[in-house]
Amino acid sequence: MKKVGLAILGLGVVGGGTYHILTEHREFYQKTQGVDISVENVLEINRERALALGIPEEKIASNIAEVVTNPDVNIVVEVIGGVGVAREFVLAALNAGKTVVTSNKELVCKYSHELEHAAKAHNAGLYFEASCVGGVPIIRTLLDGVQANHITSMMGIINGTTNYILTKMSNGGESYESALKEAQRLGYAEADPTSDVEGYDAAYKLSILSSLAFHTKVPLSEVSREGISSVTQEDIADGKKLGYCIKLLAIGKQTKDGIEVRVHPTFVKADHPLAAVNDSFNAVYITGDSVDDVMLYGRGAGALPTGSAIVSDVIFAATHAENKYSTFKNEEKAEKGVKFAKDYRSAYYLRISATDKTGVFAKITSILGSNNISLDEVLQKVSDENDRATITLVTHETHETAIHNAVSKINALEVASVERVLRVVS
Amino acid sequence: MKKVGLAILGLGVVGGGTYHILTEHREFYQKTQGVDISVENVLEINRERALALGIPEEKIASNIAEVVTNPDVNIVVEVIGGVGVAREFVLAALNAGKTVVTSNKELVCKYSHELEHAAKAHNAGLYFEASCVGGVPIIRTLLDGVQANHITSMMGIINGTTNYILTKMSNGGESYESALKEAQRLGYAEADPTSDVEGYDAAYKLSILSSLAFHTKVPLSEVSREGISSVTQEDIADGKKLGYCIKLLAIGKQTKDGIEVRVHPTFVKADHPLAAVNDSFNAVYITGDSVDDVMLYGRGAGALPTGSAIVSDVIFAATHAENKYSTFKNEEKAEKGVKFAKDYRSAYYLRISATDKTGVFAKITSILGSNNISLDEVLQKVSDENDRATITLVTHETHETAIHNAVSKINALEVASVERVLRVVS
Repeated sequence: MKKVGLAILGLGVVGGGTYHILTEHREFYQKTQGVDISVENVLEINRERALALGIPEEKIASNIAEVVTNPDVNIVVEVIGGVGVAREFVLAALNAGKTVVTSNKELVCKYSHELEHAAKAHNAGLYFEASCVGGVPIIRTLLDGVQANHITSMMGIINGTTNYILTKMSNGGESYESALKEAQRLGYAEADPTSDVEGYDAAYKLSILSSLAFHTKVPLSEVSREGISSVTQEDIADGKKLGYCIKLLAIGKQTKDGIEVRVHPTFVKADHPLAAVNDSFNAVYITGDSVDDVMLYGRGAGALPTGSAIVSDVIFAATHAENKYSTFKNEEKAEKGVKFAKDYRSAYYLRISATDKTGVFAKITSILGSNNISLDEVLQKVSDENDRATITLVTHETHETAIHNAVSKINALEVASVERVLRVVS
Repeated sequence: MKKVGLAILGLGVVGGGTYHILTEHREFYQKTQGVDISVENVLEINRERALALGIPEEKIASNIAEVVTNPDVNIVVEVIGGVGVAREFVLAALNAGKTVVTSNKELVCKYSHELEHAAKAHNAGLYFEASCVGGVPIIRTLLDGVQANHITSMMGIINGTTNYILTKMSNGGESYESALKEAQRLGYAEADPTSDVEGYDAAYKLSILSSLAFHTKVPLSEVSREGISSVTQEDIADGKKLGYCIKLLAIGKQTKDGIEVRVHPTFVKADHPLAAVNDSFNAVYITGDSVDDVMLYGRGAGALPTGSAIVSDVIFAATHAENKYSTFKNEEKAEKGVKFAKDYRSAYYLRISATDKTGVFAKITSILGSNNISLDEVLQKVSDENDRATITLVTHETHETAIHNAVSKINALEVASVERVLRVVS
């Protein structure tokens, strides 16, 4: 039977989960996968943590050199996170010809070229299913499940923290602040929740997934990003009236104008499959030219779901020696001649506060019309105090710049101001 | 660049779609997959059909021998269907050392051992993603996406025809007969709809998917099967009152009692992700011991979605020469020592017609109680005419045999009869 030796770098939540899965399933993988996977080394600052997991002392390495020179180690699993020592250790492993399996989205997003070069130069594999959407095999699907397709669109709920918060706000009527606190209490959100709630985490993942879907490097700098900290109960209530749920969507599209990549709170029509993705669940909705629509749904985080993705990569690496560069193929084409479309098309929801006088609404619609923006739906609420009215609109599909222009012009009217702009997916 | 020559056997809907995808995307696959895939032969009784697709005359083979002796053909795509010539041609291809990609669920379900032996003996690959759930990469996911898991449960809506009919009956209030006619008019159902509506099609697919998920051959003969032709508007109305949708589910589970495999109309709780799978869409909901719940959703049929699965298999076969026997590993263990659990556990819905007299309900609950069946919910409707009452129950989880026994005993009471039994998934 083929023997594969592993090293695990980092024994935090995911590292511990991965070790647990590997030890619990060792015989199962021998039987079902024909491969004997053993953990030969771990590297963890907190030695007690390793011992508590039952790892024999002689397997606890003192430094990365020990790991990458160990001839019994074939595959190095990196679950440290960040781009400090993780980057250093991953490069050391690749340079020593060890295949790397990582869950590190920031590292893969920011340094994929460097890692790819090192892997290629030393005939090592590089796998990162666990970097995006936890246990959901979205990367395997993009590489080997729908690769016959031109992918035209990808829309994902790929951050569990924000989906949990938005679900709480929508179903429980909670404020953003109170839902965030609950998420922190449950361990879904970190003490400093910025990376999740402001969409950075989703932007990393979107950069990686779009690079694979569109066969070219999609740098993080191209991803437009807007978080959920500005979402209010008024947004949610208006959405419900209009038949929408609010979700933080990561959207990647390839159109004739180029690649568009963006993360923002979005009104999603209530009967869209993504609207039913609640709590901390994640999902990615892919459209391909042959397969049409495909959605993958599951747990986007957690020790065991993420560990499942890591171990699935380990087994794949152990049983498919060929084609380990499947993610590298377009490396050279990454930056040359690729167009990114900043002025993308979308439908929009606008909430406008205006003086409640004859002619004001006509002025607004005239500005919209002169920017080629047509209306799909109008909901007008008259508020008594101060003679102000709140007008809620949903536009047909139009360009982002057209909306920007129209919003500036409406705000320049003394009688009206745009209070909220949200993108809409039907 | 690696060159791969294909033969397509059968140019019906799926064969035509496959040819279309391959010719439209040839350059795209060269660029993105590093492989040049050309169609070197087709085999089709209706020569005109081949010519109409623009296939050059010299590529139209006259018989299977011509195809399997063609040194330019590496991969044979079989999309004829059935177990007559399809079986003969697939065996001829495998025996000639050609890798086979097939969409033929009946063939894979009934003859997997024979095909596997031939493939192994001649060092050929065998791929059949397109045999189950159209363009949805469920087989790739089971083999290479969640293979780190003990799969404990799989629940699928894997027949588009029946899902279309049940959606029409649920949303439009149509009768079974009228919804079936509509499905036939749209080409979703065949003139003889038996294979779809009686669950045979789903049973083939469940046999294949369970064999992969549970790492042992699950023969068709072990699959319990009940179709949707008996579903009435009364079932749908009762379901709605109790908060359920009705779906034809294919369920595979591995419990301590063995493997259970069954296809039947099922009440699915309205907030379950499978409840939102409507019209001709398909979905498979998998539970693994590490990954927890994962769902794949998409088009279960159609020329291009099924063609997408075929071409994805072709590309995978062309770019992963190793491990092409991944589906064969447990071949030898198929029949020995595997337990199948016929007496599975489920929650049940019962509709009982009874004489509307004191003591009758007590008799019924006493029979249920003596079979260890406890009640989750009771809905009693009193009907005026003839002093009959209809009692609707949902039980907690219990054994199938317990329900059978209880139903026999209730029917033996002169005062009550069980009119409907449906399994329930929360």
